[in-house]
Amino acid sequence: MPVPTITWKNDTLIIIDQTQLPVRFVTKKLETVQDVWVAIKELQVRGAPAIGVAAALGVAVGIKNIAAADRGEFDRNCIKIIEYLATSRPTAVNLFWALDRMKKTLENNSGLSVDQIRTALTKEAENIFNEDKAICRQIGLHGNTLIPDQCTILTHCNAGGLATADYGTALGVIYAAHEAGKKVSVYSDETRPLLQGARLTTWELMQSGVDVTLICDNTAAKVMMEHKIDMVIVGADRIAKNGDTANKIGTYMVAIAANAHNIPMYVAAPASTFDLSIESGADIPIEEREAKEVTHGFATQTAPDGVKVYSPAFDVTPARLISGFITEKGIIRPPYDKSITETLLQPASAYEQ
Amino acid sequence: MPVPTITWKNDTLIIIDQTQLPVRFVTKKLETVQDVWVAIKELQVRGAPAIGVAAALGVAVGIKNIAAADRGEFDRNCIKIIEYLATSRPTAVNLFWALDRMKKTLENNSGLSVDQIRTALTKEAENIFNEDKAICRQIGLHGNTLIPDQCTILTHCNAGGLATADYGTALGVIYAAHEAGKKVSVYSDETRPLLQGARLTTWELMQSGVDVTLICDNTAAKVMMEHKIDMVIVGADRIAKNGDTANKIGTYMVAIAANAHNIPMYVAAPASTFDLSIESGADIPIEEREAKEVTHGFATQTAPDGVKVYSPAFDVTPARLISGFITEKGIIRPPYDKSITETLLQPASAYEQ
Repeated sequence: MPVPTITWKNDTLIIIDQTQLPVRFVTKKLETVQDVWVAIKELQVRGAPAIGVAAALGVAVGIKNIAAADRGEFDRNCIKIIEYLATSRPTAVNLFWALDRMKKTLENNSGLSVDQIRTALTKEAENIFNEDKAICRQIGLHGNTLIPDQCTILTHCNAGGLATADYGTALGVIYAAHEAGKKVSVYSDETRPLLQGARLTTWELMQSGVDVTLICDNTAAKVMMEHKIDMVIVGADRIAKNGDTANKIGTYMVAIAANAHNIPMYVAAPASTFDLSIESGADIPIEEREAKEVTHGFATQTAPDGVKVYSPAFDVTPARLISGFITEKGIIRPPYDKSITETLLQPASAYEQ
Repeated sequence: MPVPTITWKNDTLIIIDQTQLPVRFVTKKLETVQDVWVAIKELQVRGAPAIGVAAALGVAVGIKNIAAADRGEFDRNCIKIIEYLATSRPTAVNLFWALDRMKKTLENNSGLSVDQIRTALTKEAENIFNEDKAICRQIGLHGNTLIPDQCTILTHCNAGGLATADYGTALGVIYAAHEAGKKVSVYSDETRPLLQGARLTTWELMQSGVDVTLICDNTAAKVMMEHKIDMVIVGADRIAKNGDTANKIGTYMVAIAANAHNIPMYVAAPASTFDLSIESGADIPIEEREAKEVTHGFATQTAPDGVKVYSPAFDVTPARLISGFITEKGIIRPPYDKSITETLLQPASAYEQ
């Protein structure tokens, strides 16, 4: 059973504080909007889908305490909460997407009473939460059809339950295969500089009883040469219309190595990760991170003062190196020029109804 | 000017304490055989050639203090010193090779007086030191013929002055090009888990005024995709008769990425690194390192308790991915089946006379 990154029960929001992992497992009750803001800001909850869910539920937490005589007063307070939460992390697009859904629910239901709109908003936050879970399960089910009874999978970074509502995208496929009784083993790249693979992926797989071995990023090709890897599955941050995929730095190097060893490489991601307004990977903007994450990682200085550092957060894997995309709408196969648009425009599946 | 990893002047041995780099530059006078033993044991001096040189000079330090009435007593004490230094690090082959040369000098000169053999042994240690310097300079000169006037080179781990008497193999080529007035820039992989690239390569290149940028290992392919890399140069730990090359873990992944981007990949190493008794890379034994280096690097725990770790210290790059070997005897080009043996068996060059 994957870990409950976010729990919402009896109108109470509880998260795993991911900054404490893997040394300490600490859950945290977020009792006020301020608590939620801090949790997102300080990366206690991280991963674009998880941030969106936490923000939506953060609105549900906040509106509990609005003592408003009428809708006018309630709405002004609610908008304040939404705008405040939007300042927690400026770059995660799911944050704005989720808060926008909350705002639309408020605006589209002006006829409801204060009590009624409180219920409607809470319901919408729960929908966002449940939809994310459902999407991950669908990705898992589709992905599981690709996994043989015995399989060793290499993954990079953390596209797991900790990055989503509770099940993950790349790791969702692995959980689905594991739950189906298949003998699945995983090699997890540690993923420099922030070590999401070492800190988070190994931890959540171990929690779920999935066999996992940690390797340094530079060891992936050697493990492939030793015929230990049957398949690579990673997540994605943005996928262009032609299938070029931006994901955590190092994904491209893994893809080249997989290609050189004839190992299939899959990208698991929800439909919302595809950006059809972008023609190819060349147009995806790549964030650069601070030098300090590389030179002063984890409390120790490990490079000279003033050394130049190049630390892009993502790279782009060309579509030709990707065997398929595992989405909630099914597996998308090359040629992507046709298949991506066709699949994404097909009617909504069960969970969306 | 490269850094003086080891200095021998007026019968005094001084090293750079590499465990303090890059945060502190500390030189250390090694006044006794015990000092030398500790310096090797605790990796204050590291890199196979540098260890061999330090051990030979350690014998020269030790025999200064032998107060012996006759050769019998001197020889017994000298052998004790040699055997003691041989226990400092059991795996570095250059340690035994250098100490063996010292022992042979002792045994082949039984007719000399105590004062005369002291001088002969000191001279032999100085020879080992100077030969290593000369070999690195020759590698630099040959390698420099490959470098265009403007060139950006990617390297992995530390095959620099800090790993040799003072100039390095892979970095020796870079120093030679830099000294020849060429505009050379370097990208240095940080080289997990022990970060020799981040800690040592960037440091010594900065000391020498060579432009260097630090990247995480997983970023090399992205930098290549951005057309920033003209050439890859790395060192080697053992090269089989067919050209398959064992070097620091991650070298193979760099080689695959270089190949995918049509970037030439060179291995710079002295003739002594070729092991003609080994037919191919499959026969090179690969040391595995402790999990702790990956999970508890640099004082902080960054992976779960009890996580399985696979941490080979080296990998083998197949000869077909290597554009050439830069040795003190010249550049060796494919097909290696012929060229390696032919080059290594050619008459000694100037520095060896």
